[in-house]
Amino acid sequence: MNRFFAVIPAGGTGTRLWPLSRAAAPKFLHDLTGSGSTLLRSTYDRLEPLAGSRVLVVTGEAHRTAVCRQLPELRDADLVLESEPKDSGAAIGLAAAILHRRDPDIIMGSFAADQVISPDQLFQETVREAIYTAAQGKIVTIGIKPTHPSTGFGYIRSGGELDVDGAPNAHAVVEFVEKPSEEVAQKYLETGDYVWNAGMFVAPVSLMLKHLEANQPELFAGLQEIAAAWDTPRRAHVTARVWPTLPKIAIDYAVAEPAAAAGDVAVVPGTFTWDDVGDFAAIGRLNSAKEVDEVTVLGEGARVFTENASGVVVSDTKRVIALIGIKDVVIVDTPDALLVTTKQHAQRVKGAVDALKASGDTDVL
Amino acid sequence: MNRFFAVIPAGGTGTRLWPLSRAAAPKFLHDLTGSGSTLLRSTYDRLEPLAGSRVLVVTGEAHRTAVCRQLPELRDADLVLESEPKDSGAAIGLAAAILHRRDPDIIMGSFAADQVISPDQLFQETVREAIYTAAQGKIVTIGIKPTHPSTGFGYIRSGGELDVDGAPNAHAVVEFVEKPSEEVAQKYLETGDYVWNAGMFVAPVSLMLKHLEANQPELFAGLQEIAAAWDTPRRAHVTARVWPTLPKIAIDYAVAEPAAAAGDVAVVPGTFTWDDVGDFAAIGRLNSAKEVDEVTVLGEGARVFTENASGVVVSDTKRVIALIGIKDVVIVDTPDALLVTTKQHAQRVKGAVDALKASGDTDVL
Repeated sequence: MNRFFAVIPAGGTGTRLWPLSRAAAPKFLHDLTGSGSTLLRSTYDRLEPLAGSRVLVVTGEAHRTAVCRQLPELRDADLVLESEPKDSGAAIGLAAAILHRRDPDIIMGSFAADQVISPDQLFQETVREAIYTAAQGKIVTIGIKPTHPSTGFGYIRSGGELDVDGAPNAHAVVEFVEKPSEEVAQKYLETGDYVWNAGMFVAPVSLMLKHLEANQPELFAGLQEIAAAWDTPRRAHVTARVWPTLPKIAIDYAVAEPAAAAGDVAVVPGTFTWDDVGDFAAIGRLNSAKEVDEVTVLGEGARVFTENASGVVVSDTKRVIALIGIKDVVIVDTPDALLVTTKQHAQRVKGAVDALKASGDTDVL
Repeated sequence: MNRFFAVIPAGGTGTRLWPLSRAAAPKFLHDLTGSGSTLLRSTYDRLEPLAGSRVLVVTGEAHRTAVCRQLPELRDADLVLESEPKDSGAAIGLAAAILHRRDPDIIMGSFAADQVISPDQLFQETVREAIYTAAQGKIVTIGIKPTHPSTGFGYIRSGGELDVDGAPNAHAVVEFVEKPSEEVAQKYLETGDYVWNAGMFVAPVSLMLKHLEANQPELFAGLQEIAAAWDTPRRAHVTARVWPTLPKIAIDYAVAEPAAAAGDVAVVPGTFTWDDVGDFAAIGRLNSAKEVDEVTVLGEGARVFTENASGVVVSDTKRVIALIGIKDVVIVDTPDALLVTTKQHAQRVKGAVDALKASGDTDVL
């Protein structure tokens, strides 16, 4: 356990949660569950019992101030700022390279900043199993037991049990599979061998880097160069020069899939509830605290009046919002942009953002 | 025709058009049709070919500045400001008393400031017939030929033709009837004897005052006292003392209905289109100018993005509004209040306003 170091990639703009989540204030900086804590802060607090202060955050340069305000305990050397987004391969790869240089025995665990998990204790038990399994020389993904045949997630096909002390639920991974059709997803559920790929994994940094070097030598070399300078005065200079030249690739393709093919990946299924807050319908599900009639209201100081209405209101203003005779509506009210849609169409918000971008209305994105 | 003097009562808050129309900025101060002209200004312009500058406006003291800005040609003596609302009996009665004192032969025509009429020419022809008929000693209502069995309007039952030069369509009025049920309204339509009561009438001021004196002697006396002081330096002083003491009664009960019972009321049916802009569904009907897909957009500088949506958006802000997958929606976006409802429920906005009032949220009313 004392080899463990948590990594929190805090990236992405959460386009499907526009106009609440946007480039300047992405999803992880918001309290989307009405818990009183942002997703980033909740992620940190969930890892603290496992990692103590051994937590590294990777985020965009633009979010430095907001992240530091939310995580005042974060040390400067543990905050990796991307001058431009380079996908998860570079983000997580750099974390691995930095940690490896500090201590090649570190087992890293990567947990995105914008997910909702409960209860924390079940999560921590699962991560502990993953750490024990990783210590045996595995890249360990934490899969989520499917509750329905989702077509929105990739799946992990698990194989035989692994015999690991302290990790009774660890299995080998046969393969990662892409988002399936509903019929295929239904079959996956029936076999019992498939779990959702939640993008969480725990692995020895040395093993991560070994696969990265084998599959993405150019990316590996660049990351090693930055890592060598990281805990020195040359950090900013070298990062500014090398980072923009790195190839963009997801960690799944750069490491996880080739490692699985090589038999180096295990899975520990998580039985905690997990939600990636993919759209505003999720926000309705995740918030039960403040209901005005059948309307879930999110936002401090929200002034919502409803009559014969249901749905979700996210209020980021002090305006009075009156809903009359409208069902399953989703309303997101921010100072410069208003979204009105339905729970059913919540997934299509991304299309609206793309259209606004195309029309040049980028001031509200 | 040179006896004619137009009166424009500009009252009411247009509660069913909240939050666009509100106490501080009622319906008549807005351009609700996308014509580029407010309802008040359009009403004035429609009457100008008939009345020239002989136009008197009755409105609330709070609207003095807005009304003067919209009607810069209005003389001070032709602007009647109510310190508190006293219903149409006092408002129109005072106009009659003031005009009668200037010239007892005046024929007044009263036309509310918040109605949409077109084409102007047909309206003007109808008013001319009404003036000729009024000159024969009648209070002449202008009825609207019903286009459907509306349950939202009172009806006027017409009787025999009147033989008036220049007014071939003038009929006697048998009675006024209250808003009917749908079945009753359907029967009215089938007889062909009923027209909608649009609250427009043309009458000799002397005849108006005769019936007012007979039916509402207290109101009559108070109005006479104010009128006697009107075109003198004592106007403000006397008005401030007397107006608050006047009884509240609608002009229908104070004058029109008793006069009809006495055989003194005629009707000229109008064939122009007429809409009292009773709710936001009406705004959808009345605006065809700017459509974004199937969404009618009202408001200068509106930035509306739609995908698979229909309905009405009234934008009183510069915010981006995105509608996705929502049908027949009504959205009214103002700086301090947002309404989201459907065309079908548009009539229930009044209930929301009542509830806000009850809850103490009066800052947005």
